[in-house]
Amino acid sequence: MVDASAEPSKSALKKAEKQAKMAADKAAKAAKQATLPVVGGKKTDDIIGITVSKAENFSGWYQEVVLKAEMIEYYNEISGFFILRPSSMYIWNTIRKWFQERIEALDVEEASFPMFLSSKSLEKEKDHVEGFAPELAWVTKAGDKDLEVPVAVRPTSEAVMYPYYSKWIRSHRDLPLRLNQWNSVVRWEAKQTTPFLRAREFLWQEGHTAHLTEELAGEEVLQILELYAGVYEQLLAVPVVRGRKTEKEKFAGGYYTTTVEGYIPSNGRGIQGATSHCLGQNFSKMFDITVEDPAPKAGEKARHIHVWQNSWGLSTRVIGVMVMIHGDDKGLVLPPRISKLQVVIIPVGINKSTTPEDKAKHYDQLQELKETLKKAGVRADYDIRDGYTPAWKFNDWELKGVPLRLEYGPKDAAKSVVSFARRDTGEKGTIAIADISTEIPALLEKIQSDMYTKAEAAFRAHRIVITKWEDVVPALDAKNVVLIPHCLAEKCEDKVKDLTTSKQDEPEVAGEMKAPSMGMKSLCVPFEQPEGLVKGETKCLNPECGALAEKWCMFGRSY
Amino acid sequence: MVDASAEPSKSALKKAEKQAKMAADKAAKAAKQATLPVVGGKKTDDIIGITVSKAENFSGWYQEVVLKAEMIEYYNEISGFFILRPSSMYIWNTIRKWFQERIEALDVEEASFPMFLSSKSLEKEKDHVEGFAPELAWVTKAGDKDLEVPVAVRPTSEAVMYPYYSKWIRSHRDLPLRLNQWNSVVRWEAKQTTPFLRAREFLWQEGHTAHLTEELAGEEVLQILELYAGVYEQLLAVPVVRGRKTEKEKFAGGYYTTTVEGYIPSNGRGIQGATSHCLGQNFSKMFDITVEDPAPKAGEKARHIHVWQNSWGLSTRVIGVMVMIHGDDKGLVLPPRISKLQVVIIPVGINKSTTPEDKAKHYDQLQELKETLKKAGVRADYDIRDGYTPAWKFNDWELKGVPLRLEYGPKDAAKSVVSFARRDTGEKGTIAIADISTEIPALLEKIQSDMYTKAEAAFRAHRIVITKWEDVVPALDAKNVVLIPHCLAEKCEDKVKDLTTSKQDEPEVAGEMKAPSMGMKSLCVPFEQPEGLVKGETKCLNPECGALAEKWCMFGRSY
Repeated sequence: MVDASAEPSKSALKKAEKQAKMAADKAAKAAKQATLPVVGGKKTDDIIGITVSKAENFSGWYQEVVLKAEMIEYYNEISGFFILRPSSMYIWNTIRKWFQERIEALDVEEASFPMFLSSKSLEKEKDHVEGFAPELAWVTKAGDKDLEVPVAVRPTSEAVMYPYYSKWIRSHRDLPLRLNQWNSVVRWEAKQTTPFLRAREFLWQEGHTAHLTEELAGEEVLQILELYAGVYEQLLAVPVVRGRKTEKEKFAGGYYTTTVEGYIPSNGRGIQGATSHCLGQNFSKMFDITVEDPAPKAGEKARHIHVWQNSWGLSTRVIGVMVMIHGDDKGLVLPPRISKLQVVIIPVGINKSTTPEDKAKHYDQLQELKETLKKAGVRADYDIRDGYTPAWKFNDWELKGVPLRLEYGPKDAAKSVVSFARRDTGEKGTIAIADISTEIPALLEKIQSDMYTKAEAAFRAHRIVITKWEDVVPALDAKNVVLIPHCLAEKCEDKVKDLTTSKQDEPEVAGEMKAPSMGMKSLCVPFEQPEGLVKGETKCLNPECGALAEKWCMFGRSY
Repeated sequence: MVDASAEPSKSALKKAEKQAKMAADKAAKAAKQATLPVVGGKKTDDIIGITVSKAENFSGWYQEVVLKAEMIEYYNEISGFFILRPSSMYIWNTIRKWFQERIEALDVEEASFPMFLSSKSLEKEKDHVEGFAPELAWVTKAGDKDLEVPVAVRPTSEAVMYPYYSKWIRSHRDLPLRLNQWNSVVRWEAKQTTPFLRAREFLWQEGHTAHLTEELAGEEVLQILELYAGVYEQLLAVPVVRGRKTEKEKFAGGYYTTTVEGYIPSNGRGIQGATSHCLGQNFSKMFDITVEDPAPKAGEKARHIHVWQNSWGLSTRVIGVMVMIHGDDKGLVLPPRISKLQVVIIPVGINKSTTPEDKAKHYDQLQELKETLKKAGVRADYDIRDGYTPAWKFNDWELKGVPLRLEYGPKDAAKSVVSFARRDTGEKGTIAIADISTEIPALLEKIQSDMYTKAEAAFRAHRIVITKWEDVVPALDAKNVVLIPHCLAEKCEDKVKDLTTSKQDEPEVAGEMKAPSMGMKSLCVPFEQPEGLVKGETKCLNPECGALAEKWCMFGRSY
């Protein structure tokens, strides 16, 4: 799940780490100032917004946003770990519920396997263990006693689960077996960690299924991939490209990997969204998962056939992608469908000359507005904290990404309207109070779809079909991902990466690691192929390759 | 959560372990036979039921039930770990949903903290670390490199979370802070493990909250305890006694512990159900969690006060308690509210002389029955597996504990009725098809309440008020827990345990560890106290004590 293949140069990495640390320290300091207690009812109008520009220092901006919007906290005790605070968990639980309902409809059942695996079962699938070995966390002691055999914390659960698939699957009647678990896994990354995107422990779901035939397994691979696309597109308002990973980039030990790939406009990088793997019969052969052929050939004895397996996972990475795409210099921008608070109502025009009676009456009206919205299915609340100006509150809720702000003052009351401000566009207007039950749900849906449309247009505009090699690097430099005719050979991919990597260590630009130093790698072979590739005729775009192109392949600098 | 204080003698333990292993092997063998594939459509009427009597060999019976009913699987790779299969996870998720809704109503928010803790933060609270140190699993290596500082897998998260409570709580406005997480924890028990009851890893929820005053904290402790009682009583049909743990039995490092205590009639043992702790200011002092006093005394400067903290947890242990209480020699008996399948419909009277048309028509009627029940909110399905007799299917669903079986054959169809059989009592009858939408939901609720009533009566009958010391051991031997006047001193509790422990190694009785070898320990001081204890007059029942009794205390042999 967590992509382990972006490899900036070592010195660039060090630089980036130092900068990230500085940005985090700065953000932490700012956050501390921002939430100083209000003493003695004094107004506090400290700047609580984001202090780094998204355009100028994207990684610094990102770290400040997730920290100040109270999505994450750095776990100082052990590096590479993060605390997910309630606003993140709300999003994750919304996704969980949405996805869980849909896999239940596919008869996927929930299970819970232990978090540890023995080295013995791990070693059964060689390619698989090689893929994960460098990142395994080993428990070697319990209390003050050494364990006879050390155990590893699961990086993924194939090797934990499949010995039992072998035990439980005895007949074709036991197929399909479809189990899913929601848990956390540990991959002790040596590389720089980033909240949500690359963490040493992350939350995910992992589905593991077994089928009688390749066809049945393949059908499910795509059903699940479509659900992953749905999480991005329908909940997070994030566009993705569906496709298949190349041999080089597929899951270690699997047969083939399908993926949804995202795109971060700010730096032009691709990002793996979620993957649905067909494992083929590789694991069933290693773990001896067989059934008797239910339809043996005439005259032949029924033979044992190895089952076809899939595994598929979606992690909290999705939250990071969403933040990167929608956020702006004021902070987080949340799509309404996944925002715990969709509408915040802020009283305005209440001041020292307002009588206590008028204030109380006005607050009663806020309560009525809230209740009307709740009845209409809108997650709404008001902010009547004393000691803060409306402007301070506007900033605070903008930072936290609440999709819609309603302002309500005596002037609005006189006209029986509320004023609104959209978080995504800043657009303002008024709505008659009589209409809020219908207008506000509709407006929230419009915000949701506008956010998607905007992001989709950005991705579409930066997915460039390239047919001349010399156009590749300039396209990457212009923050595009590229579609090129490619032979799909692993060696050629290595070469392409090499050819697009700047050799010299570039100077810093605006405090960021200079992106062009990174070579491009294949993101996926999109299911939706551009026109113009003639099989047996079109050549692989790599000038040093010479082979024929198999497919249009999407390449890019990436996470 | 997982009670770590039952201590049978060493030889008894070894014997019990050996017997448990034998029972498990036998059960595994039986399970294997039971699920042999049906080859060539032949009828398979192997005995699939439980082979051990609950009355004669309780622990063997329990292990066979949880294995054969497909609730758990032993994780052979690492001892002391168990796999929770879908039928267990359904129950756990039902509990989770029920509890989550209710804590959300209390404004408890969800968070996710890392699974590892550094030794540094662990060492802050001395009593706490001493309590958990022998059971900590230590990660010392990542990949092939030794970690500079080893990290432990959380046994509970006080030491993981509270450094951040110190950071996040700056003002009394930040109180109460209430966070909960659903996760798994690891306690590397040296003692014998048992599915659900005592495992080296278990699922639970852990709530951690901070309040301004002792009173506010104490209020929440009881609100949560009442929810835990609700999980047992309302969902699992298991009666519990609410009370407070003695000083000896309270949470390590806490202020006081409240508990719900259950009772297993088969062996007369008490079992801790779930605990809600007030931590007092112990942890807030160690982790420096303070706020400025919002109501300083007149003329005095506002001083910093340490917050009052609670922690509370409910684990998958609840499932084991439920199995032990309701199960019988046919297998699992599930309360309808937590059973994934509430009603199974089995066609009867379909045989070789039935025409294909009649069979198809009959199966269409099964589908109609199922749909009618689903519309009435009943989780129903039919079993039309070919190659199994109705009797085999009856056994299979009884083993799995489905609360209500409906039998439906041509004779029932002719009378427009369905026949039913209750899993809990075996009671049979018929219901007019026209009435099933109302009668069956009502019958399920009756089963739920009858199961509770029966278990409640058993617990009540075996909770004996004792006022003579010489009555204690005979009462324990008659499978009771006892209520005795007690001084509540830790030393006296040790003595009571000692005095009630048989010194000699008793001979085996019916293949089980002879229960009387175990001494009794305090379960709780029930909130609901019997009459008759005169403060300053009634003496502690321990004949070697001599101090005055403080309260009626519930003692028993226990898990």
